[in-house]
Amino acid sequence: MAKPKKQPRPKAVTPKGFRDYFGEEVTQRTEMLRTIAGVYHRYGFDALESSAVETVEALGKFLPDVDRPNEGVFAWQEFDEGGNGDWMALRYDLTAPLARVYAQHRNDLPTPYRRYAMGPVWRNEKPGPGRYRQFYQCDADTVGTASMAADAEICAMLSETLEDVGIPRGDYLVRVNNRKVLNGVLESVFGEVDFVANTLLPGAASGSEMKDAVLRTIDKFDKVGEAGVRELLTTGREDASGAFIDGVGLTEMQAEPVIAFLTSRSGDTAKTLQNLRAAVGTSIVGNQGIRELEQIGDLLAAGGYGSDRIEIDPSVVRGLGYYTGPVYEAELTFEIFDEKGRKRQFGSVAGGGRYDDLVKRFTGQEVPATGISIGVDRLLAALREKGRISAQAKGPVVMTVMDRDRMADYQAMVAELRNAGIRAEVYLGNPKNFGNQLKYADKRNSPVAVIEGGDEKAKGIVQIKDLILGAKIAESATLEEWKERPSQFEVPRGDLVAKVREILDNQD
Amino acid sequence: MAKPKKQPRPKAVTPKGFRDYFGEEVTQRTEMLRTIAGVYHRYGFDALESSAVETVEALGKFLPDVDRPNEGVFAWQEFDEGGNGDWMALRYDLTAPLARVYAQHRNDLPTPYRRYAMGPVWRNEKPGPGRYRQFYQCDADTVGTASMAADAEICAMLSETLEDVGIPRGDYLVRVNNRKVLNGVLESVFGEVDFVANTLLPGAASGSEMKDAVLRTIDKFDKVGEAGVRELLTTGREDASGAFIDGVGLTEMQAEPVIAFLTSRSGDTAKTLQNLRAAVGTSIVGNQGIRELEQIGDLLAAGGYGSDRIEIDPSVVRGLGYYTGPVYEAELTFEIFDEKGRKRQFGSVAGGGRYDDLVKRFTGQEVPATGISIGVDRLLAALREKGRISAQAKGPVVMTVMDRDRMADYQAMVAELRNAGIRAEVYLGNPKNFGNQLKYADKRNSPVAVIEGGDEKAKGIVQIKDLILGAKIAESATLEEWKERPSQFEVPRGDLVAKVREILDNQD
Repeated sequence: MAKPKKQPRPKAVTPKGFRDYFGEEVTQRTEMLRTIAGVYHRYGFDALESSAVETVEALGKFLPDVDRPNEGVFAWQEFDEGGNGDWMALRYDLTAPLARVYAQHRNDLPTPYRRYAMGPVWRNEKPGPGRYRQFYQCDADTVGTASMAADAEICAMLSETLEDVGIPRGDYLVRVNNRKVLNGVLESVFGEVDFVANTLLPGAASGSEMKDAVLRTIDKFDKVGEAGVRELLTTGREDASGAFIDGVGLTEMQAEPVIAFLTSRSGDTAKTLQNLRAAVGTSIVGNQGIRELEQIGDLLAAGGYGSDRIEIDPSVVRGLGYYTGPVYEAELTFEIFDEKGRKRQFGSVAGGGRYDDLVKRFTGQEVPATGISIGVDRLLAALREKGRISAQAKGPVVMTVMDRDRMADYQAMVAELRNAGIRAEVYLGNPKNFGNQLKYADKRNSPVAVIEGGDEKAKGIVQIKDLILGAKIAESATLEEWKERPSQFEVPRGDLVAKVREILDNQD
Repeated sequence: MAKPKKQPRPKAVTPKGFRDYFGEEVTQRTEMLRTIAGVYHRYGFDALESSAVETVEALGKFLPDVDRPNEGVFAWQEFDEGGNGDWMALRYDLTAPLARVYAQHRNDLPTPYRRYAMGPVWRNEKPGPGRYRQFYQCDADTVGTASMAADAEICAMLSETLEDVGIPRGDYLVRVNNRKVLNGVLESVFGEVDFVANTLLPGAASGSEMKDAVLRTIDKFDKVGEAGVRELLTTGREDASGAFIDGVGLTEMQAEPVIAFLTSRSGDTAKTLQNLRAAVGTSIVGNQGIRELEQIGDLLAAGGYGSDRIEIDPSVVRGLGYYTGPVYEAELTFEIFDEKGRKRQFGSVAGGGRYDDLVKRFTGQEVPATGISIGVDRLLAALREKGRISAQAKGPVVMTVMDRDRMADYQAMVAELRNAGIRAEVYLGNPKNFGNQLKYADKRNSPVAVIEGGDEKAKGIVQIKDLILGAKIAESATLEEWKERPSQFEVPRGDLVAKVREILDNQD
């Protein structure tokens, strides 16, 4: 009989584009989510945790395609004898599930329904450096009201959230724009636009490509400035490399509303709105958008939110294609150094806006909704960057094992420490080599090691090593300092907790 | 041209076997996980959040099968031009991912590695009432040590966790057994067993079915008692319905060690171990198991964990097939009424044990490990059952809208309340019908509604309605009481926060 082939060992790796999170990475995120949930809760938002798995039908957008049913999402077909099982998929955001939940439970939910949700989402996309296929989202949405008070409230809550997680005033800015204003600008240039569907009216279809080109040009404002955009909208422009970029082909007069729109920002809300009125001219939808911005501005001003925290800023274009009314973006304004050592702004950590066709797919009824999504992982990165949270936290106090028969004594000591609220553990590896125990303590980033050998036990004392001070002394101390600041202390057994507490307090 | 067929509306439902969690269900679970993480952290355990998606290869057990690759798990094949993409799957527990993580990162992790993990897992199983295909697990494991101190520590930590989440001493019991003792008992009956693989040695294969039958019989001890088990192990037994159940066919003498094992439990650990020694006789593995239990018992006794909290109990058989050494189970001992109104014990909320072949699949090296898994949802159900947490929490204070042009005033009032730490919101629905606003407050389970119409504004006052007292009075008060205990208060605008605070405090 042939010897059965030996099964090769499985590879111990995450699937491509996925990663594991260890220790502080996990607890710091949990703590941040808790803080954010605290603010949302105070504002009357209720928690919702929908299932991670949805039917592809309910998720929409990604209907199964015979060749590649999992484009964009991770999807699979339920087993069914006839091969006709439902397609299911992992959620790719928290908004599509909210639409399903609201449609499903609308009779039991209050109207308006304020809800927050936090958790992982999955994208079946090509992974890249720092781009994972599973990441956290943290959303708050108000469903069922068209009132601008809902939008203003979301902006105020976003501002408060950033301050609560540790971004001080001055280091962030919530910027607000309105999709309708941009539609008004496009109307000024091209005539009427079907602003509900964010597409051109059928009759105007011939101008559609030009409009897309205008939108793409608006997106370049940050990079090329006013003069550059003017050239790109009209006859074209030579870029830094000397290559010539074709213009959109507008006349100077047609380009004017777009330029007016892009340069309308001013520190003063009333002034900004004035500038926008000039940009949209007589467009009905444009003026409606400006009125909405005005309402939001008034409510925020009444709430004491100055333009140092929340600002009307027409240069926010991100997401303008997706949303139907106000859009918001939170940006961290402090500078960091990128991987090439160049200064740059940290940038966006949250965004959102109003989208009024959320539930219509399911019920046929239009339900107005508005909300934000906070990028928790980016926000954590920002706090680490600023040194507001440390990348590596303190490990536990390590009780070393000098005599493996006295494990019960050691366990009793760590129990005392824990009861005093001090994180502590007994070394559970092979205790033979004491050096290994200290190496372990080092790997654990332990602040303190406790030692009780037979001699100590007989004398009723314990040795307590300040590992952080010890490391510092070993690194840089002179002999004098070494003598003056011992890092190991001999104390009566009864003083264990007090002495450890004292050392920990001095380390902070 | 034929009219294009109208796409039917998608159904707004979760996939079969999945559900959504609302409000308190989410926040109470989050709070419980936080409490548990606090205990685990104090014991020196580090957080780990592995990816929800693993390769099927790394998950093991569920290798893809051409006909039905997703048996037991939710699995799909990565897209690949040649159709040879990797199979991926959602994790079905937190232990298989731990094995993969440890094998992948073992050079960077401390040894031993204490880690905790909490999060959803997914099972592709037939859903049933109360059985979902996504549910939470909450695990703590120590990898890389064979020391019984690790097992004792896990039991102590489990006991402390239960008390910290709100199960008082006396309402739970952590029960400890050891797979090796059972193996010893089987050796007493049948001769030597390959206790590492938990299977019979090849030479003894003929008795294999009998051994399985013995294990199944042991599992019936709770139901049929000592005499019943004795009959089932030997010649058979008539059950309650009068049907005759065949016996396993052991002689009375062979059955003796099994009976001795099952009846060895005693309030006193030393006595229990004594009884077990009689049951395993000269079996080497059996006596090794008893020594392990003895070590765990000694460490726990030294730590002050009496048999009112943790008990050596040979009747714990759950999971004995899977584990290789000590097994633990936490049981809630108070009685509840089941759906038919019968009293029954609440039962198991956590379990675990030692499994020493965790990482071997990946690396070829045997790595000892031990750990527990807490059933958070069952634990939450128990706390609700005992009235320790309420199923429905208080909603926010609702600021009603009497005059939609004064939204800024209303927002300012809720901002004041929030700044005082009081959960509050402005009604954002259509304010026309005041009755709808109160209905909304009722649906939100609001404790207080605030009203400020034009008259109040002019007089500098606000109306504050105690909705909970109001509901009580409406339900049951006499006219006298009604007069004496008004549920609506008129206070100066400046006293808003103080009065709301007072009402909330009185409601608690």
